[in-house]
Amino acid sequence: MRILHHLPLSPQSRLARLLLGEKRLPYELVIEKVWEQNEAFYALNPAGDVPVLVEESGLVVPGARVICEYLEDVYPDTALLGRTVGERVEVRRLLDWFDRLFQQEVTVNLLGEKVEKRLFGQGLPSGNVLRQGYKNLRFHLDYIGYLAETRTWLAGPSLSAADFAAAAHLSALDFLGDINWKHAPSVRDWYARVKSRPCFRSLLSDKVSGITPPPHYADLDF
Amino acid sequence: MRILHHLPLSPQSRLARLLLGEKRLPYELVIEKVWEQNEAFYALNPAGDVPVLVEESGLVVPGARVICEYLEDVYPDTALLGRTVGERVEVRRLLDWFDRLFQQEVTVNLLGEKVEKRLFGQGLPSGNVLRQGYKNLRFHLDYIGYLAETRTWLAGPSLSAADFAAAAHLSALDFLGDINWKHAPSVRDWYARVKSRPCFRSLLSDKVSGITPPPHYADLDF
Repeated sequence: MRILHHLPLSPQSRLARLLLGEKRLPYELVIEKVWEQNEAFYALNPAGDVPVLVEESGLVVPGARVICEYLEDVYPDTALLGRTVGERVEVRRLLDWFDRLFQQEVTVNLLGEKVEKRLFGQGLPSGNVLRQGYKNLRFHLDYIGYLAETRTWLAGPSLSAADFAAAAHLSALDFLGDINWKHAPSVRDWYARVKSRPCFRSLLSDKVSGITPPPHYADLDF
Repeated sequence: MRILHHLPLSPQSRLARLLLGEKRLPYELVIEKVWEQNEAFYALNPAGDVPVLVEESGLVVPGARVICEYLEDVYPDTALLGRTVGERVEVRRLLDWFDRLFQQEVTVNLLGEKVEKRLFGQGLPSGNVLRQGYKNLRFHLDYIGYLAETRTWLAGPSLSAADFAAAAHLSALDFLGDINWKHAPSVRDWYARVKSRPCFRSLLSDKVSGITPPPHYADLDF
């Protein structure tokens, strides 16, 4: 069976789960406590982080971006990277946007401070960092809202990996209760459409020790 | 004419230049002073950073990773992302390694402190950050050395975008005189091979105001 080494709240792992689910590729989840720096896991992925996909053939595919390109190369039937050259550039531009900008400006400042710092034994969240994270989140919600208002899906006319990358980050922050949907109605409408895809179900039933998501987290009609 | 908006010492811009050069695609360079936050440039790339490729057709391709995938999609003749599924996973794993790990652990701490901080008016380099950068650089040189000793090129039997990604970062640090090649002979031998490619010439003649590279920077037999 195909295995995905992951962490429930890792947006990169969530992206891999959504892509596998949307392409209807069955997989088993294995939680990898990356902070324990397990040697066997470093042998799979020298970078030491999740997600890592291990195919039944034994092929090891580490990292969400690598998994995304790999799945599109090998299982192209449900195209998630766009069909035309221009669409592919736009999907990948947004993948890069969420993987680098959103990750550094929002996810590291909120999820990193509240969850990862504790797991890695690095102390309490910093108020200044959280404030910067919330400020950056408002900018990013405006940008996602602008895309959602002017296009059918974030990268254009078709549902793509860009939607799943954005939804992966937002869903992890939503689990922490960090998203005020009332202030971002266009983002909420787009997110409700992504959230209702069958591939999203596994994310909505995630359990994380010590964190209770808000009641709307798993609600498709929030 | 195809245009690449770039900065001479940006490793991501250098990667784009090397890929274009290796694929023998002619282009003109335009320097983009990203710290001036030029509105016309934000219209090309909302992320506000270099490189940005603009094709003669007007198609805008922002970001080194996006450019890399785009060039391979559209100009596949000189394959730089590997030929088999396994090779493509390994090339992209290393692209991810240099784009995220090397960038955050080494490049930001050295090039970021010494050059970008000045350009963005953020003050003097921090000794602690530089020390951490040099420490991380030693680990990364060991890893690159291990790959160079066990394979023909970094990702396997063929020259690939992984070699250019690594060389793009190392060449920018070498411009600053930050690489002690004597302590990394296997990396030096591999780098000499990459450096002697015709696509590398444009990097070796770069001029940057206020920084004089060490004499060995442009020497193919260093």
